[in-house]
Amino acid sequence: MPRYRLTLEYDGSGYNGFQAQTDQPTVQGAVETAITAFCGETVRLAAAGRTDTGVHATGQVISLDLDKDWPAQTVMNALNAHLVGERISVLDCVGVDGDWHARFSATGRRYLYRILNRPGPPALDHGRVWHMRKPLDADAMQSAAQSLVGLHDFTTFRDVNCQSKSPEKTLDVARVFRVGDEVHLVFEARSFLHRQVRSMTGTLTEVGLGRWKVEDVAEALAARDRAACGPVAPSHGLYLTGVVY
Amino acid sequence: MPRYRLTLEYDGSGYNGFQAQTDQPTVQGAVETAITAFCGETVRLAAAGRTDTGVHATGQVISLDLDKDWPAQTVMNALNAHLVGERISVLDCVGVDGDWHARFSATGRRYLYRILNRPGPPALDHGRVWHMRKPLDADAMQSAAQSLVGLHDFTTFRDVNCQSKSPEKTLDVARVFRVGDEVHLVFEARSFLHRQVRSMTGTLTEVGLGRWKVEDVAEALAARDRAACGPVAPSHGLYLTGVVY
Repeated sequence: MPRYRLTLEYDGSGYNGFQAQTDQPTVQGAVETAITAFCGETVRLAAAGRTDTGVHATGQVISLDLDKDWPAQTVMNALNAHLVGERISVLDCVGVDGDWHARFSATGRRYLYRILNRPGPPALDHGRVWHMRKPLDADAMQSAAQSLVGLHDFTTFRDVNCQSKSPEKTLDVARVFRVGDEVHLVFEARSFLHRQVRSMTGTLTEVGLGRWKVEDVAEALAARDRAACGPVAPSHGLYLTGVVY
Repeated sequence: MPRYRLTLEYDGSGYNGFQAQTDQPTVQGAVETAITAFCGETVRLAAAGRTDTGVHATGQVISLDLDKDWPAQTVMNALNAHLVGERISVLDCVGVDGDWHARFSATGRRYLYRILNRPGPPALDHGRVWHMRKPLDADAMQSAAQSLVGLHDFTTFRDVNCQSKSPEKTLDVARVFRVGDEVHLVFEARSFLHRQVRSMTGTLTEVGLGRWKVEDVAEALAARDRAACGPVAPSHGLYLTGVVY
């Protein structure tokens, strides 16, 4: 049974997250519908990251099996044709071994959080960035972010509904830097807890605004208490940008 | 009578161009409505560039007079508040002398054309880029673009409905370069003919695709004949990025 690895870009605005749900538009639902429209097969795909409602992707990775051995290029073109009208694009498609799995073979996930940091609201990037009018100190945020890197109990930055068995995760990369009018936050880890990136981002903005000191983030982490978390950043500034295998 | 200079960003997708029209949504109409909602005055604003339907701006400049001498910051914040729901943002507002005029004081306009050059269609930048699947040779486009720089009769690259008195214009800058998956075209001139940027861009893509030779663009220009123009690039990849005073 041929297996394919596909890379997806999507605008999360119009979807109730990635994971398929009955009677709700989801990215998974739209892609699985497109597969059936293309070849008649009913498939259940696997994904590297189950992004929340409103979260975007420029590098989501999925795997799926088809009965017939189509050329990878044909699968990609056919899915893109059937996804016209959706805000989902197949960027790449390759054949992979049957033991390769988009979720379980992944050794790293990379997320980008975009904050538009200027007085004027976003006209072109409405729904694509978190708009913060007050100037952020990106250098202070970068310093504070370093206390999150490494193996930690991330209970503080974990949603109460998180279903992960353990709150312990290793954060490999946390970088905060300015790009024109924007402040970008990049995080990399083997895996993340539910809403961990948005919880860390919102907390770091408290440092950027000068309401928290740089050291307060390390203290919040050490508290291992959800109540010690700052505000949770909204979903529409978050992007799954890549998966490492 | 206090005069203000405002810088605007807008997503041109939902507007029938910049210039006010009866019974059609336009950028000018939305901004003038916001001004009236803010201070009760009915004004007619002036703009550096009258962008076509679907064309975006990151640096449109307008001027307007108000009876009352409001602080510039107040004008900006009030207009942004009244523009919620529109895809128009006021980025900057300053008081200027009464003889300063957004259109007539301008000595240069800068446009950016964005081509997304990859197999997969745009999910996040739908309506913001021209999607071309086949690889473009940006270096060849850059070479060909240099034949357009300088003082020329641009009849070839002028829309048949252009109302400019003369087809002669001086193109100061034409640059074509790759930015990741995109090919960007930047043009600067004191002023442009109607659809000149989109006509030049579409023609240069013929070189990028290898259908035209680099020298063919100079020949098309020399022909001074609209029929010698290549395809006209669609409006939704075009941005007015700045105005020089």
